[in-house]
Amino acid sequence: MTVVTNSFSVNGATYHPVESPIVVICIDGSADEYLDISMAFDKMPNVKCMSKQGYRGMVRGALPSFTNVNNSSIVTGVSPAVHGISGNFFYDTEKDKEVMMNSSEYLRAETILAAAADAGRKVAVVTAKEKLRDILSYKMKGIAISAEKANQAKKETHGIDDVEAIVGYQTPAIYSADASLFVLRAGVALIEKGLADFLYLSLTDYMQHTYAPETKESLDFYEAMDKEVGKLLALGAIVGATADHGMNAKVKEDGSPNVLFVEDMLQEQFGDHFRVICPITDPYVKHHGALGSYVVVHVADKSIINEVKNWLAMQPGITEVYDKATAVRVLEQPEDRTGDLVVLSARDVVVGRSPQYHDLSALDGTLRSHGGRYEEMVPMIISHPLNETYKKKAAGDPRNFNIFDFTINGTNEGANV
Amino acid sequence: MTVVTNSFSVNGATYHPVESPIVVICIDGSADEYLDISMAFDKMPNVKCMSKQGYRGMVRGALPSFTNVNNSSIVTGVSPAVHGISGNFFYDTEKDKEVMMNSSEYLRAETILAAAADAGRKVAVVTAKEKLRDILSYKMKGIAISAEKANQAKKETHGIDDVEAIVGYQTPAIYSADASLFVLRAGVALIEKGLADFLYLSLTDYMQHTYAPETKESLDFYEAMDKEVGKLLALGAIVGATADHGMNAKVKEDGSPNVLFVEDMLQEQFGDHFRVICPITDPYVKHHGALGSYVVVHVADKSIINEVKNWLAMQPGITEVYDKATAVRVLEQPEDRTGDLVVLSARDVVVGRSPQYHDLSALDGTLRSHGGRYEEMVPMIISHPLNETYKKKAAGDPRNFNIFDFTINGTNEGANV
Repeated sequence: MTVVTNSFSVNGATYHPVESPIVVICIDGSADEYLDISMAFDKMPNVKCMSKQGYRGMVRGALPSFTNVNNSSIVTGVSPAVHGISGNFFYDTEKDKEVMMNSSEYLRAETILAAAADAGRKVAVVTAKEKLRDILSYKMKGIAISAEKANQAKKETHGIDDVEAIVGYQTPAIYSADASLFVLRAGVALIEKGLADFLYLSLTDYMQHTYAPETKESLDFYEAMDKEVGKLLALGAIVGATADHGMNAKVKEDGSPNVLFVEDMLQEQFGDHFRVICPITDPYVKHHGALGSYVVVHVADKSIINEVKNWLAMQPGITEVYDKATAVRVLEQPEDRTGDLVVLSARDVVVGRSPQYHDLSALDGTLRSHGGRYEEMVPMIISHPLNETYKKKAAGDPRNFNIFDFTINGTNEGANV
Repeated sequence: MTVVTNSFSVNGATYHPVESPIVVICIDGSADEYLDISMAFDKMPNVKCMSKQGYRGMVRGALPSFTNVNNSSIVTGVSPAVHGISGNFFYDTEKDKEVMMNSSEYLRAETILAAAADAGRKVAVVTAKEKLRDILSYKMKGIAISAEKANQAKKETHGIDDVEAIVGYQTPAIYSADASLFVLRAGVALIEKGLADFLYLSLTDYMQHTYAPETKESLDFYEAMDKEVGKLLALGAIVGATADHGMNAKVKEDGSPNVLFVEDMLQEQFGDHFRVICPITDPYVKHHGALGSYVVVHVADKSIINEVKNWLAMQPGITEVYDKATAVRVLEQPEDRTGDLVVLSARDVVVGRSPQYHDLSALDGTLRSHGGRYEEMVPMIISHPLNETYKKKAAGDPRNFNIFDFTINGTNEGANV
């Protein structure tokens, strides 16, 4: 089997892949604490080996620290300001409409995956949630499947038939550890069978939303993931792993959700001028009840924006408030898909709209969520030693969406990178 | 030997120590990455054992993420807004004077150490740097020594004679790994010899300022620390460890310091209205050249504060800007010891005054520093299992300055906590 090693460029960066299979894994919602405690219990010998022989450190994700935002960044290599996906929802002020962004028509950048395929690599993207498949496979020639709908994949639309037979596992339930494990198992099978040599494997954070790092369920899950990583390494893959965001408990001492309903707060203080958008809102209701640590506020009366900003900045539980211009620069937001104000909340606090917009009865257990500053920093682990250029880069302000760059160029001693 | 187990209260919290020696360690400048990579290389079997049998997680430090600020918080259990130590320097506007705060006369809260001693415990505080001894031993009956001046300790002033003979090591050089190891060794010796049963051991971050986590020097240092932790555990101590702040490289791609000189920037833009205070400034010149990721700005013309704030918020490398009222609330600052504006910089950026205030020639190697948001989150490790109350507390927004609370009350199953 000949592997193509053509270099390719996309969004201003050039990638020089070697022949070995390249595998990038996004461990959805994997705060560093999950790795720490799993490794203390010796559950992750393969990832431990990666840390020793390659690299382990922290990288900064994109904000809001949500799944779609960061998956879009990872496959394009650029920030939300460039690729345009700033959450699952935004409010289109011109059309006066709340718009769902779960589709590639909202993506404003090309993907590394499509470019690699155009350069001749056998590309596969496997995602746990079907919702991500459309964005991740944008303009891409190759295999694009989800664990959630693995049994519906067809050659014409997904680049592959008979996924269950090839992977050797049945389509898993989406609210399960198996949903993520299926993604990794599919990656192993695709390499083993010579069907792919350039892979992006994007897991789901159902387990992290539901279980704290030190629980038996979580330790078992990380152990099972590590086994699949070991198989990827045994197949000769260069593996880079990161997360889209971290995860924190967002509850009061009595275990109930620790929520600030921002639209209600503003209405009480200033009257009926506000529309609060929770860009974490998505159809996977068991995860977080549409409550994260980041909301966007649209203010009908623009003359009071500064006053509202200053008032919000003084409310307990709110940690950062930005006007649009500052959000565009500091939070790297696309100007037309953010709001007049952006609000971030504390490590243990989520922000919502009004109680009627949030159904918490569907949660499996406690409220653990993300979206804000305290879920911004995530781990990055690379299986092979970094060259001198990328050692320096790792010691600066590396981003989780540099993961393809680190995995491909950072481990390539030969290329003129 | 009888150990007193009286409960005691200080700054609104009550502590219920058991008979076992209580040891709290502040691993100065220990970003979590130092533990991660040292444990991947199996250098820390004792801390690994603590993580498994007790607890390992992340806690939020006080801002600015400086040594004195966080040491003051740790020994008082409260934020800088309460204890008053907001850095090494502040500008006293009434006296028009820059005031050094390295002394207990600026401390506005009682300490847990003094209260424990009053309740009958044999208390010892051992610090690497002499500068911290005065604050940490404020009103305290017991032993208070520094590694830096161990050979100058006297019964009347330090509560102990012949420190070198008791510890079995000579007074170390302050710019060394030994400066921190001496602190831990002193802790071991004091417990072994029955001289203390309630200890605070505060290390120095010279090694972290000088070496990245994956360097041989750092791995050797963490291995040597772990050995002493093992001796503390073998003596039956309940050990809690945290850090005052993290540590990040603050350099450009060419390795040169990545500095924004804020006073010069403001003068060029707005004229001669500004005094920038770098509250990291201290006499230990080899660490950071008075460059951290947090400065305070005093504005002579109060009418332009808002304009200056908005301008600063748009400058690349600057990540957060607060006016005084917001800094007091969000950053927990004492109102009379902060400035008109507070400025925080990016993970790889430091903020300074003007070049003439910063001598970088004394640095041992590269510029690694702290002070900002990206050095706020630090590890917390407790040797014994947490009770149910403190498991919940750990899953909220625990602080590094709750470390005595977690170590004492969190591991106490019997007390009515």
